[in-house]
Amino acid sequence: MTVTDDYLANNAEYAKTFHGPLPMPPSKHVAVVACMDARLDVYRVLGINEGEAHAIRNAGGVISEDAIRSLAISQRLLGTREIILIHHTDCGMLTFTDDEFKRSILEETGIRPSWAAEAFPDPEEDVRQSLRRVKASPFITQTTSLRGFVFDVATGELHEVAG
Amino acid sequence: MTVTDDYLANNAEYAKTFHGPLPMPPSKHVAVVACMDARLDVYRVLGINEGEAHAIRNAGGVISEDAIRSLAISQRLLGTREIILIHHTDCGMLTFTDDEFKRSILEETGIRPSWAAEAFPDPEEDVRQSLRRVKASPFITQTTSLRGFVFDVATGELHEVAG
Repeated sequence: MTVTDDYLANNAEYAKTFHGPLPMPPSKHVAVVACMDARLDVYRVLGINEGEAHAIRNAGGVISEDAIRSLAISQRLLGTREIILIHHTDCGMLTFTDDEFKRSILEETGIRPSWAAEAFPDPEEDVRQSLRRVKASPFITQTTSLRGFVFDVATGELHEVAG
Repeated sequence: MTVTDDYLANNAEYAKTFHGPLPMPPSKHVAVVACMDARLDVYRVLGINEGEAHAIRNAGGVISEDAIRSLAISQRLLGTREIILIHHTDCGMLTFTDDEFKRSILEETGIRPSWAAEAFPDPEEDVRQSLRRVKASPFITQTTSLRGFVFDVATGELHEVAG
């Protein structure tokens, strides 16, 4: 038995009381970009109900090219207008450098990734970096609200970072 | 008042009963890659508790370079071993083509994105495409279980796609 099997058993229970389908476009017109961290249950942290907001997540919650792709699709095809960025304390991205990470992959596999790992030393500064990247993108044109936060994994609180 | 403000009020309530911090590495050693769709509350769909699994999400749940980056960090630095891929029915990615999407951006902004939008006509086939991309990556070397699913937004059920 894998954990995947356990989760599939949970899904069978979930489906028993499920009511759908909801409409495709997010009803609250919000897109959240957050770190993939296991302690950051974005729906619960923000009190989001099913169907309300897009959830875009990656290592660090960084504004990668793929996050820009997702936001562009979110705004242009599905009508979202507010963007919420969430990094967090005690993030794995603070524990290494791109050079170290890529060297370890090179040593194991013989292949050096052509992409940046996007490690960062300070979550607040990286929220500011992410805010700037969203503002600088020529493809994210329909934003009415853009705000960035650091989630405190000790207290559950979001702390806003000035842009 | 924005929806973001409403969500921040929800967060203040959430923090009142929050107990942390949990450890950084996902306790169940699982990474989920899923579509950003608002109806797909991954924690609830799989019965995931806080701290158990990484959640990587983008438009379509595609295995982009950024998803590979996130999975590499998840496995190499934070010890995940099982990977679960989730696409879903009624996906926005089925409603357009890359050519149309990029032309609409070009017409509005004068700039054609250099990236693929990653639209796809069939969610099951795109799950298979994603399974193949994970298997083909030289950087995802520590997987003990890799399985892909289509989430039915009408019933809440996950249907496995053979690789």
